[in-house]
Amino acid sequence: MSYLKKIKEPTLLLNEEICRNNIRQMAEKAKWNECIFRPHFKTHVSLEIGQWFKEVGVKKITVSSLSMAEYFSDDWKDITVAFPINILEIERINRLANKIQLNVLIESQEVCQFLDLQLTSKVRAYIKIDAGNKRTGISIDSISRIENLVQKIDQSEQIELFGFLCHAGESYSAKGKNEILLIHNDYQNRLSKFKAYFTKDYPDLILSIGDTPTCSRAEDFTWADEVRPGNFVFYDVMQWIIGSNSLNQIAVAMACPIVAKHKERNQLVIYGGAIHFARDSRMHPFLDKNIYGLAVELTEKGWKPTKHVNYFTRMSQEHGVLQVSDEFFDQFKVGDLIGILPIHSCMTSNLMKKYLTVEGNWIQRM
Amino acid sequence: MSYLKKIKEPTLLLNEEICRNNIRQMAEKAKWNECIFRPHFKTHVSLEIGQWFKEVGVKKITVSSLSMAEYFSDDWKDITVAFPINILEIERINRLANKIQLNVLIESQEVCQFLDLQLTSKVRAYIKIDAGNKRTGISIDSISRIENLVQKIDQSEQIELFGFLCHAGESYSAKGKNEILLIHNDYQNRLSKFKAYFTKDYPDLILSIGDTPTCSRAEDFTWADEVRPGNFVFYDVMQWIIGSNSLNQIAVAMACPIVAKHKERNQLVIYGGAIHFARDSRMHPFLDKNIYGLAVELTEKGWKPTKHVNYFTRMSQEHGVLQVSDEFFDQFKVGDLIGILPIHSCMTSNLMKKYLTVEGNWIQRM
Repeated sequence: MSYLKKIKEPTLLLNEEICRNNIRQMAEKAKWNECIFRPHFKTHVSLEIGQWFKEVGVKKITVSSLSMAEYFSDDWKDITVAFPINILEIERINRLANKIQLNVLIESQEVCQFLDLQLTSKVRAYIKIDAGNKRTGISIDSISRIENLVQKIDQSEQIELFGFLCHAGESYSAKGKNEILLIHNDYQNRLSKFKAYFTKDYPDLILSIGDTPTCSRAEDFTWADEVRPGNFVFYDVMQWIIGSNSLNQIAVAMACPIVAKHKERNQLVIYGGAIHFARDSRMHPFLDKNIYGLAVELTEKGWKPTKHVNYFTRMSQEHGVLQVSDEFFDQFKVGDLIGILPIHSCMTSNLMKKYLTVEGNWIQRM
Repeated sequence: MSYLKKIKEPTLLLNEEICRNNIRQMAEKAKWNECIFRPHFKTHVSLEIGQWFKEVGVKKITVSSLSMAEYFSDDWKDITVAFPINILEIERINRLANKIQLNVLIESQEVCQFLDLQLTSKVRAYIKIDAGNKRTGISIDSISRIENLVQKIDQSEQIELFGFLCHAGESYSAKGKNEILLIHNDYQNRLSKFKAYFTKDYPDLILSIGDTPTCSRAEDFTWADEVRPGNFVFYDVMQWIIGSNSLNQIAVAMACPIVAKHKERNQLVIYGGAIHFARDSRMHPFLDKNIYGLAVELTEKGWKPTKHVNYFTRMSQEHGVLQVSDEFFDQFKVGDLIGILPIHSCMTSNLMKKYLTVEGNWIQRM
């Protein structure tokens, strides 16, 4: 039976072949650069998809919360929680640190002191460095603050100093490959010097980097020790707009029933809104409009692009409105299914909680 | 034990007293107008909170999906699904129509014909009217299309014609009470005439309206038969910006751990991001910035406003960044909890899936 026959309401489709290709390409790039490939699992958050990473040799992963680390802790024994450690969860930290190699992020003396007193098992810690993203972390220019924290952690009984972790979040504002590469080169220049300064005294410290745009488009990561991209497992329309991937590298699409048609404004109304997709949006590069996704045609084997640009233009809690060409409008009737490449696959998958592969198998998520 | 001691990670707090007041006030306004009060349950989606509506005499409800109707169908026997009916879910529709009084939305001949052939139990139908919102429904100006559909449904065996349903979605773009009232008056003028036109021949047809802004601020609903607001149960910062409510009518707040502090830019980093709050935002009326929420101080009994405006300025998957005053900044340390009034309570509650009352009790949600 075709997977399409199973769909009665908004459903997140997964093309396993595209997804495995995305995983393989990134694993190969990391290998070629002799970097540890520690993929971020916050996008798929699935034990089953995790196995596809094992098949290309991945042994270490990144997650964004302790609950996600717990979910993966039977299958994965070396997990980095790439989020400033939340000391209120000390019991959870101790349970996990007793079970697996847990790696945490520290950016202050206070947290270091707290952990040193409260930890019952050893953890490794990265110092979170802010090289311009200004979300969190110690500024790369505050060398003395970083040195003080390096010394503090180095003296700790329970915390082993592992290295520095940095996220080039600026790449999410890039418009095209060239801008991504400029950001990458800037990070490379500054972080290489930064690391060299510390490895004089601490030769074993590693430098961990990695966001999907730079990891997808840049080639040289030999200056880093570890890469942690996540979104590339599925990609999405936002990453396509940024310049990270082509549309045919996107491994997920939503299938949504059409519930109404409005010829006077060439709009299709779908069952599929903010509780299915999330309300992320992005300016389309040549439509000059904010979009929530792009329509595709569903086929027995997955989906294919449409001739004109047909886009997701308006969203409420359960409703979606697609702005489409005359030709596309006439192709569909109420009760048909339509495909949508989501603008932000991490958020859509977080809401949908499971995947239907185009072979018709359900894959669970945390 | 204070509810605060139970919190280790982002948690959605509910002030039951404020919530019950919001419910009581709206129920009284509907009663005074001699309207059926059919509240929309898409915001709280909780059997337990539903009971608070029963206590003020509510007997009929609105939901936005068939799965939500199923969830409430043991407790509520008259449910309107205020969404263009999705014919792919015909089996679910038949199961529900056999169990409860199910009321659906129709806006095309094709769907009417499909249901007439496929329904195994009777349903009531509203015709969805678009009076300017342009999301979906038949335009209020297309009188002959509406007349044709009225006749079609009137001839149906399985579908009883119930009335017209309209949503003044424009009110969500209002800036203040006056703009809300202008929209209300415009709808009142046009819908009163519209209804009068049809009740000559069909005297029993009802007119169902109701969005939170107009239902909160307007007084005269005697021209309608039924009101269906939903968000008012909690309100939120977006509704405050629109002009629907005061800040002290907001019945929910997120409690989030502080995980980092950045004095150089007066920012607190919290554990709490797009997977907890959703990424809705709105322009603050005098900050001239898009915000994701407003900070409050948590107390043993709930929360209280802060002296200056401290706001949620940046969000990623799990991180939130608060922009705060000097005074507020110095008040907190890493590991403390902070309260945030969410920008859009429907979306936040959909992600959080449960509530912790400020008395320390957990309330479940669908």
